[in-house]
Amino acid sequence: MQMVEGLAINFATTRTHWQTLAQFVDGCLRAGIRTVGPWREQVQAIGIAAAGRLIRDSGARVTGLCRSGLFPAATAEARRAAIDDNRRAIEEAAGIGADHLVLIGGGLPPGSRDISGARQMVADGIAAVLPDARSAGVLLAIEPLHPMTTADRGCVNTLAEALDLCDRLGEGVGVAVDVYHVWWDPDLSHQIARAGRRILAHHINDWLVPTRDLLLDRGMMGDGVIDLAGIRRMVEAAGFFGPQEVEIFSAENWWKRKPDEVVATTIARYNACCRASA
Amino acid sequence: MQMVEGLAINFATTRTHWQTLAQFVDGCLRAGIRTVGPWREQVQAIGIAAAGRLIRDSGARVTGLCRSGLFPAATAEARRAAIDDNRRAIEEAAGIGADHLVLIGGGLPPGSRDISGARQMVADGIAAVLPDARSAGVLLAIEPLHPMTTADRGCVNTLAEALDLCDRLGEGVGVAVDVYHVWWDPDLSHQIARAGRRILAHHINDWLVPTRDLLLDRGMMGDGVIDLAGIRRMVEAAGFFGPQEVEIFSAENWWKRKPDEVVATTIARYNACCRASA
Repeated sequence: MQMVEGLAINFATTRTHWQTLAQFVDGCLRAGIRTVGPWREQVQAIGIAAAGRLIRDSGARVTGLCRSGLFPAATAEARRAAIDDNRRAIEEAAGIGADHLVLIGGGLPPGSRDISGARQMVADGIAAVLPDARSAGVLLAIEPLHPMTTADRGCVNTLAEALDLCDRLGEGVGVAVDVYHVWWDPDLSHQIARAGRRILAHHINDWLVPTRDLLLDRGMMGDGVIDLAGIRRMVEAAGFFGPQEVEIFSAENWWKRKPDEVVATTIARYNACCRASA
Repeated sequence: MQMVEGLAINFATTRTHWQTLAQFVDGCLRAGIRTVGPWREQVQAIGIAAAGRLIRDSGARVTGLCRSGLFPAATAEARRAAIDDNRRAIEEAAGIGADHLVLIGGGLPPGSRDISGARQMVADGIAAVLPDARSAGVLLAIEPLHPMTTADRGCVNTLAEALDLCDRLGEGVGVAVDVYHVWWDPDLSHQIARAGRRILAHHINDWLVPTRDLLLDRGMMGDGVIDLAGIRRMVEAAGFFGPQEVEIFSAENWWKRKPDEVVATTIARYNACCRASA
């Protein structure tokens, strides 16, 4: 069969059906998609060694392993536990030959209103695990999350903020650009250009009008208002020509459909509205 | 009775009960709150002259009239209609002696994915009505809205963007700082300092965890994660000592309660957690 170049599927998109790593990789390959973005739970379910063999034997390529980060916590003990967990994520990413490890900030610790403090915990956490990542040859991709997730999920909220972190941390850290999180940013074209070769991932989906849930109502490309081809042009102008990775959290729509239909739709929409030439 | 200084109530907070301008102003004054933020529909329901008399006779003070803006539209005719409507809003604000007119960007025109184009329509729209506002002595307060509202409500999304607009437009334009829309911004303290005397309004409420609706699930001060006293200190350091105005859209909670209870709660929470000294 003909393989689709330039398109990757993230596990989140078909998670309700293709739950194991084997199901997920098989399903993508059957649909002609060779590049996949697994989540840690899939690797942990069978162990790093088995997951690495499965990936190598399948011929699939891994973009980023999702996901790590989530450093802010109320106690020093909990912050150390988060750092330990990130070290395990780095081992997992190395073990399956992932291109990078996707990292999100995490929200405010319970009861906290100290957003600057939470952001400092993110910076400190990444700094603590960066030597491990460098030793393992795993790039860390900081993914800024939409400001509606600041409180409970991701307190790194703009590309500017993520790149400021990269500037402070040095080699081995870049960014994941998910259109859902950054499309609204008036400074977007400037920050994508600034990112340059530090762009490690480009995630796609769409912003629906109306949006009925802050987390689980993402749209399929073409069903919303994001200028996907326009953002792709910015990303390629910055020097990133890696795959566009479909990541759709959609509890009431796409997660209820058959995964083969979902993946077939992503391919059609990718060709129709996501390429830089679209 | 003792009046509460430094606190204003916006019509939106009690809109399900105090619907007319008279009900709203009376209710606030009975609770000891002299400073009010009405909406245009209240003025239009009785006419500018009657609304102006009602305000003057009551002894109430008006912060901003809410709300105008909403310039982006798909056709030149619709854009002209939006500009005409903003001119009427300026007359209304002048007629009731409002301190300023609150202006939001508006979303993308139906079917559009051109966010830069929408933002340009906002800039053009404000430029078109600014001479009218200056003649009428009405200050325009651009209110950046949370990025989760970009598509359908407000495409001016950060204080930086609003202040860049102010820089381009010149005298007579400032910003309304609503904590709900800006609390997440990593550049917040810097942009509030940059705003300085261009801060025309300071709106308060809180960000709930979880937030169940993108528009109508705002929290009462103290029930969420926003550092209200901290933001007030930034605002005062920038030179704004005007009232903190409570604006809570809460379909499932505060809008269902008796307005006297809502206002009494705002006063208690204002005293407990919103003052710069809190």
